[in-house]
Amino acid sequence: MSTNPPYAIGLDIGGTSIKAGRVAAGGEVTGQAVFPTLADRGPDAVLAQAALAIAKVADGAGAATCAGIGIGIPGIVSASDGLVRYPPNFAHWGDVDVTGFLHRKTGLRVVTENDANCAALAEARFGAGARHRNFIFVIWGTGVGGGIIIDGAIFKGPGGGAGEIGHVSIDRNGPECRCGNRGCVESYIGQRYLSMRVAAILEGERPSGRGSAILDLAGGDPARIEPETLSRAAEAGDPFARDILSEAGAMLGVALSTVANILDVTTAIVGGGVSAAPDFVLRAVADEMRSRVLRPHRDSVVVERALLGNQAGIVGAASLVL
Amino acid sequence: MSTNPPYAIGLDIGGTSIKAGRVAAGGEVTGQAVFPTLADRGPDAVLAQAALAIAKVADGAGAATCAGIGIGIPGIVSASDGLVRYPPNFAHWGDVDVTGFLHRKTGLRVVTENDANCAALAEARFGAGARHRNFIFVIWGTGVGGGIIIDGAIFKGPGGGAGEIGHVSIDRNGPECRCGNRGCVESYIGQRYLSMRVAAILEGERPSGRGSAILDLAGGDPARIEPETLSRAAEAGDPFARDILSEAGAMLGVALSTVANILDVTTAIVGGGVSAAPDFVLRAVADEMRSRVLRPHRDSVVVERALLGNQAGIVGAASLVL
Repeated sequence: MSTNPPYAIGLDIGGTSIKAGRVAAGGEVTGQAVFPTLADRGPDAVLAQAALAIAKVADGAGAATCAGIGIGIPGIVSASDGLVRYPPNFAHWGDVDVTGFLHRKTGLRVVTENDANCAALAEARFGAGARHRNFIFVIWGTGVGGGIIIDGAIFKGPGGGAGEIGHVSIDRNGPECRCGNRGCVESYIGQRYLSMRVAAILEGERPSGRGSAILDLAGGDPARIEPETLSRAAEAGDPFARDILSEAGAMLGVALSTVANILDVTTAIVGGGVSAAPDFVLRAVADEMRSRVLRPHRDSVVVERALLGNQAGIVGAASLVL
Repeated sequence: MSTNPPYAIGLDIGGTSIKAGRVAAGGEVTGQAVFPTLADRGPDAVLAQAALAIAKVADGAGAATCAGIGIGIPGIVSASDGLVRYPPNFAHWGDVDVTGFLHRKTGLRVVTENDANCAALAEARFGAGARHRNFIFVIWGTGVGGGIIIDGAIFKGPGGGAGEIGHVSIDRNGPECRCGNRGCVESYIGQRYLSMRVAAILEGERPSGRGSAILDLAGGDPARIEPETLSRAAEAGDPFARDILSEAGAMLGVALSTVANILDVTTAIVGGGVSAAPDFVLRAVADEMRSRVLRPHRDSVVVERALLGNQAGIVGAASLVL
């Protein structure tokens, strides 16, 4: 192995697919592969797929040397022993030693971290976070995940499970979240909840929904309404779509104001599927956050769009060993 | 100065009084003095009073040497330059160099920190936190303050303002808090709000209040209802007082579950005036927190009473230099 290794392998293990990439020291992805995760077949199957993905991208590296392997995976990655616990939607999963298995398999250095934390780290090194030493990273997609960057590094918390921004309750009597709590911001603005809510409103709960173009954009089927549908409708000038997205942004702003008051971190970087939404949504996040944080924080609230998109997971995982 | 200094001076600068103490390395307070803060006369007056308080407790130290002076004060103590900003209820206060002034005045090492953080540090070193490397410290009194201890040290946050547990919003549409946000847990359970709420209920808003002994305990004047009144009534078996205190405890538990999900810290230590409340109140905090935190945290939720009482401020301030 060279003293100045030219690349690392990053794995982004999701519920349906494992994305693997060769990542250079500057953050460029120079080779990629995607394998099905087989999460329903249990940890052995997932680890075998991960090993295949690693072999595939390493194979394209030619004579270049590998600095190691970084793994991003949902769930809690224990800060003390590196075991992966509680990845949601992974079957038969107890405490699994992903790190040890892949180290023994490859002989390379392996570091494992929660996937949202990896994406946060990628933004910190190579994305929107490069200008900020401290920020709250939000992945706003199917759910709402997050990571906290303090002094340029992931704030893992004592057990490795810090940064669950989606499970900040913004209304103690709010709707039940899949986590068992009530009023979590995820339960209002996560993709599945947001879409259900829009469908309910369009089906008559709120008169403002009548005449909206959203249903047409979803082919007449409320179940097919996705945040992207809302974004397109909003960009086409649909006032109802704008309302719903602004309201969702404001709810995220409420949660972020609480996080800012706890951590004294006032910069938020928003990634994930919904981050492709029009600018006014991020403005709604920032306006609400600014109006609610403690006075000394007001002038320093900044909300920015993540820059790395889908590759943040791979790049951040590789950053763990780069 | 000796290499093993036998004492430090701790100052707890509050809105009405400055408490000063000589504190030995083991945390014992070996001498004390109290001076009025004169907060309404501006920073020069406050600093002069602080210098008097220091001189007074140093005077009793005999030949013992002093390791330095620790200052606890409300507001944000900047992490970068140590300036004290925004102490609530201190008149004519901009950014004040408390540290520099007292260092020049005494020639001793001076460290300044937010007062709630000082109390948290005192509990970490010498109180209920001595068994916990990581905990959320709550001062539940007139307001709701807090401090975060990670790895035995104060988590200040990048700007020095972290740990504002009282300003976790538990209902985005809740009552307006003095900070400008809505639904902050302080706006439900801080002493002034709690008392007002009880008075309103007793005056007829809720039938459950009728027949309660609370009003008698407050001499018939709803404005004189204090948390202690509630505690006494609850201990005497008054069901309404028990309800109100349990409900307040549960609200604190909601806020703490959010803090736990963000920080991955599941131990809470509760101090301040209301912490003298009966055990069932702390149980209500713990039960609610446990029912709401993310599943991996459930088994590790612990809520304990602070041990150091009123002296936590002095002892914690001294700990900054001990």
